[in-house]
Amino acid sequence: MEIKKAASRSNAGNDVTLVHPQLAKLFSIVEGDIDDDNFAQGLDVAFLALPHGKSAPLAKKLYGKGVKVIDLGADFRLKNLEEYKYWYELEHECPELLAESVYGLPEIYKEEIKKKSIIANPGCYPTSAILGLAPLLANKLIALDNIVIDSKSGVSGAGKTLTQQTHYPELNENLQAYKVASHRHTPEIEQELSLLGGTKLQINFTPHLIPMNRGILSTIYVKSLKSFTNKELEEIYTEYYKDCPFIRIRDKNHLPQTKWVQGSNFCDIAPIYDPRTGKIIVISAIDNLVKGAAGQAIQNMNLMFGLDETTGLKYGAIFP
Amino acid sequence: MEIKKAASRSNAGNDVTLVHPQLAKLFSIVEGDIDDDNFAQGLDVAFLALPHGKSAPLAKKLYGKGVKVIDLGADFRLKNLEEYKYWYELEHECPELLAESVYGLPEIYKEEIKKKSIIANPGCYPTSAILGLAPLLANKLIALDNIVIDSKSGVSGAGKTLTQQTHYPELNENLQAYKVASHRHTPEIEQELSLLGGTKLQINFTPHLIPMNRGILSTIYVKSLKSFTNKELEEIYTEYYKDCPFIRIRDKNHLPQTKWVQGSNFCDIAPIYDPRTGKIIVISAIDNLVKGAAGQAIQNMNLMFGLDETTGLKYGAIFP
Amino acid sequence: MEIKKAASRSNAGNDVTLVHPQLAKLFSIVEGDIDDDNFAQGLDVAFLALPHGKSAPLAKKLYGKGVKVIDLGADFRLKNLEEYKYWYELEHECPELLAESVYGLPEIYKEEIKKKSIIANPGCYPTSAILGLAPLLANKLIALDNIVIDSKSGVSGAGKTLTQQTHYPELNENLQAYKVASHRHTPEIEQELSLLGGTKLQINFTPHLIPMNRGILSTIYVKSLKSFTNKELEEIYTEYYKDCPFIRIRDKNHLPQTKWVQGSNFCDIAPIYDPRTGKIIVISAIDNLVKGAAGQAIQNMNLMFGLDETTGLKYGAIFP
Amino acid sequence: MEIKKAASRSNAGNDVTLVHPQLAKLFSIVEGDIDDDNFAQGLDVAFLALPHGKSAPLAKKLYGKGVKVIDLGADFRLKNLEEYKYWYELEHECPELLAESVYGLPEIYKEEIKKKSIIANPGCYPTSAILGLAPLLANKLIALDNIVIDSKSGVSGAGKTLTQQTHYPELNENLQAYKVASHRHTPEIEQELSLLGGTKLQINFTPHLIPMNRGILSTIYVKSLKSFTNKELEEIYTEYYKDCPFIRIRDKNHLPQTKWVQGSNFCDIAPIYDPRTGKIIVISAIDNLVKGAAGQAIQNMNLMFGLDETTGLKYGAIFP
Repeated sequence: MEIKKAASRSNAGNDVTLVHPQLAKLFSIVEGDIDDDNFAQGLDVAFLALPHGKSAPLAKKLYGKGVKVIDLGADFRLKNLEEYKYWYELEHECPELLAESVYGLPEIYKEEIKKKSIIANPGCYPTSAILGLAPLLANKLIALDNIVIDSKSGVSGAGKTLTQQTHYPELNENLQAYKVASHRHTPEIEQELSLLGGTKLQINFTPHLIPMNRGILSTIYVKSLKSFTNKELEEIYTEYYKDCPFIRIRDKNHLPQTKWVQGSNFCDIAPIYDPRTGKIIVISAIDNLVKGAAGQAIQNMNLMFGLDETTGLKYGAIFP
Repeated sequence: MEIKKAASRSNAGNDVTLVHPQLAKLFSIVEGDIDDDNFAQGLDVAFLALPHGKSAPLAKKLYGKGVKVIDLGADFRLKNLEEYKYWYELEHECPELLAESVYGLPEIYKEEIKKKSIIANPGCYPTSAILGLAPLLANKLIALDNIVIDSKSGVSGAGKTLTQQTHYPELNENLQAYKVASHRHTPEIEQELSLLGGTKLQINFTPHLIPMNRGILSTIYVKSLKSFTNKELEEIYTEYYKDCPFIRIRDKNHLPQTKWVQGSNFCDIAPIYDPRTGKIIVISAIDNLVKGAAGQAIQNMNLMFGLDETTGLKYGAIFP
Repeated sequence: MEIKKAASRSNAGNDVTLVHPQLAKLFSIVEGDIDDDNFAQGLDVAFLALPHGKSAPLAKKLYGKGVKVIDLGADFRLKNLEEYKYWYELEHECPELLAESVYGLPEIYKEEIKKKSIIANPGCYPTSAILGLAPLLANKLIALDNIVIDSKSGVSGAGKTLTQQTHYPELNENLQAYKVASHRHTPEIEQELSLLGGTKLQINFTPHLIPMNRGILSTIYVKSLKSFTNKELEEIYTEYYKDCPFIRIRDKNHLPQTKWVQGSNFCDIAPIYDPRTGKIIVISAIDNLVKGAAGQAIQNMNLMFGLDETTGLKYGAIFP
Repeated sequence: MEIKKAASRSNAGNDVTLVHPQLAKLFSIVEGDIDDDNFAQGLDVAFLALPHGKSAPLAKKLYGKGVKVIDLGADFRLKNLEEYKYWYELEHECPELLAESVYGLPEIYKEEIKKKSIIANPGCYPTSAILGLAPLLANKLIALDNIVIDSKSGVSGAGKTLTQQTHYPELNENLQAYKVASHRHTPEIEQELSLLGGTKLQINFTPHLIPMNRGILSTIYVKSLKSFTNKELEEIYTEYYKDCPFIRIRDKNHLPQTKWVQGSNFCDIAPIYDPRTGKIIVISAIDNLVKGAAGQAIQNMNLMFGLDETTGLKYGAIFP
């Protein structure tokens, strides 16, 4: 693969190393204008990282010119237009393209991803939540009306926009939940868990902001329909993910830590059965910027172009 | 009050400023030997901060000499000896003293604390969890078989002992759950919630280690028996805690942050009703070293000696 | 002392707890308009925390109405109007008041502070630098043409304004110098060191931004005119500061740490002689928000009103 | 290159993923015994990461069997045996091998590195200090008797050993100097600067511990022999390092930040002339674990085996 073009609105005309000085001496490209009609020319695939509502029309334009699209934003994630309108407070601008798109979670949709032209790259929280729950839902092992997903994220998930909440002295040495019962990743998680569970379900999802740069840890509580040993649970997960190079099953004595996935495309998962309460607690960890965003986008690109899924992604966490 | 004596095993014979250089020029006392028979002499009350199994025999000795005891350890928290033995893997050394003791959560047991000679100062996690749930249980508003408590703690809660887990490069920029379904604060929380709810209940409790020094945030999920507005919920909490100077009820738009209680004896609580799922999510925040430990111990002392509950504790959070 | 009024431009009409939720249940006052002509009424002293250029005219107004002023900004720190103009790019609006003011470093100017009506509360970096060097200059022990002050500060020193530099993911896990050879605290340090040394001198001063909330550590390098034992140096410092309740002299084996002064008004200092190079290295630590700002302002107020210098400031560091 | 063997004392017999769980599914090798006589078999080069005094004898053994050695420890860094003995309090065990070794700073010793069998991989602080000063010394632009190096390091530089100093709650939100005028990297820096300057010189070097995982920033103060524009200084540096792929010259308005080199093998340097004092201030930034350790070792290996110097190292910083 070759990076042929880069474009933005705020940085058009500048070299990328102006915004990203860490790339100096490694990479240099003058950013173009994202609205330039010739932008699509010479491209096989484009990665879009835009606010919701902004990527749909651009994706349409690119699709019309035969360019495949991997959208890191939200516009193609929700299949239900009503839900999109309710949660994002917008009419979808090109609903006809939804049929051309697929939810880009390769562990679930590998075959569709190979065939589709538009990939809705999943949100960071949904990636950690869905991967944590898929084996239980697919195997019909849990109650569907009592799913609690308590997620904790590093601050890079909040983006580059300056806010009081992400001002260093306010956030450092602080801990808080936000958007309780109202975060926009909720319908995305529910959509995918419903498909896996075979019925429309609802969840409780609470995101938290953690004073660190990267990483999401989700702690998931579900009611088990039967009792297990932890070993049995681990085997169910291992079997379910047996063809997935980026999933690692951990156990109760080696619980996932975000540091073990920091900077890598891995998702580490440990399912634990609590015999006292009959619940299963699942811990899942990803790097929100890699498996939760850019790394997963590369993984999707690899699949779309018939490359080995791990191309360019075969590296471990940066430690410490 | 006057600090007349300090004692330890590891630091006997040294001035406290040797271990705590930050106290230089403010306070000076040579530490005695905790096993010295004369230690009790001249004391009205002693604060014990010892490993479980170590404070019970010392408390007995002090109690025998007429010294009141505030035990920051676990020995007098569990009323059920079987549970104590199961979770702490020890026979209790002086079960006869349990009747002389009270669980030292002033918001629940103010009157008993005034009369008792031994105070079982609560654990840090239980303080945040019980205060978060008490109004719902006392008012019989929630289902008792489906309580999830997801707690996140700063690292000072892990104590002064050096461990790989608390080695700076391992813990900084890292996020992890620990002791899933097996933490010793579980029975303490269950005991108190059962008393509040009027029936024996069980919970799911998961502690997490957060890369910051101080603070506990608990996110609690319960099934509501009816629907509420958030305003109604807040009023129920405000009414329940109307005589409690250290409880502050926050709301959905001003969710508790550990920074707002950092270094102070406050517990900030926000209850939120989720109309989609019929659950109530409660967020509660304390400083684990103050309301979760030493500050609550002072509050208990004040009550035991007929002082105003807030004596020595009327200060706000250190910010930022 | 009683807090009778609070005023601001951005928050006028609101209770302070709206901006500072951590003060809820402790303190409540509706902020007035700083430009209100009646603001001075009923006040003995006013604390100003305003950008440079903004406090001078307000101080003039208050002074005219007989209100003493403690200015936490820069307007009364530099005695030389040319230097003020050069570094702050402003004409001073009330140069006639400079004679009524004193540089509010109590360890140097205690007697003048008691008599003056306007206090120029020192900058945070200058406080740490001047206190670190005063004994050496006053005793004429070092060369005056070769003073290097390398200072490191926590982020709260940068204020509440949102900037890319203080956006959490940019600053966390990052380390940088800023304003090399051009920081506005340079002339303030030089003015005071020149007065102590008895001749006009120049320094190298480099500030650094450290990923933590509070604290300044200054590492100071000077050429000694003679050789010392460390014990001799410590005695010189101890003698010089013998009447200073907030100065603590540390030594080579117990070097100052910002954590030992965090949240307190102490300045910890250790002077070390390097026999290999004939230089003295001085390490000094303060909390930039306390001894470097608000705490020192209280200390000054105490002196102005004949109170004990330590009133309201007799507390140790918050640890950890 | 292929990793054929790994060995340790504490972990012999275990797979590396037991100590480094982040490597699971990427790499697997059972560690051998470092003292095993067959360890050398089949190896072209060995990387040693051992305490001082431990690598010299092992290097001798490997050298005897024709295996090249890259020693990340201190045993081959100092050419003067008296200095080694003074600073490390040990007799050197194989002084005869010093002649076979070279100080492995490729920007200075590229040609020697290609020819030698034993590489003394530089210390982290010396790498940042020497690279910051080399152009000034080689061009004879500064006074040699007045060099101050004030270095700040992330905590990973302190190693994996548990200490009170690196216990999270002690170090987080703390700032301190350590080993003032006595750090073992001093003679190493002096040796190399003396060689560059053409005469034996001495320096002041003060290391500091910063609450972050990775990165060293050195702030260097020297007396210039003439005046410069910053542009002239930058050109001198650019010219000196023109064949060095990992050196990036920054300027006063884009000062080096450790985040820009985090996880990469780059060293970013900015020289600044202060016309007020006639001093040059140099800021240099590296990742202590990459350019300051393992990355530099790879760079050395590449040179030893005739590979492109950047093989395996062509990646940028992980950001944020």
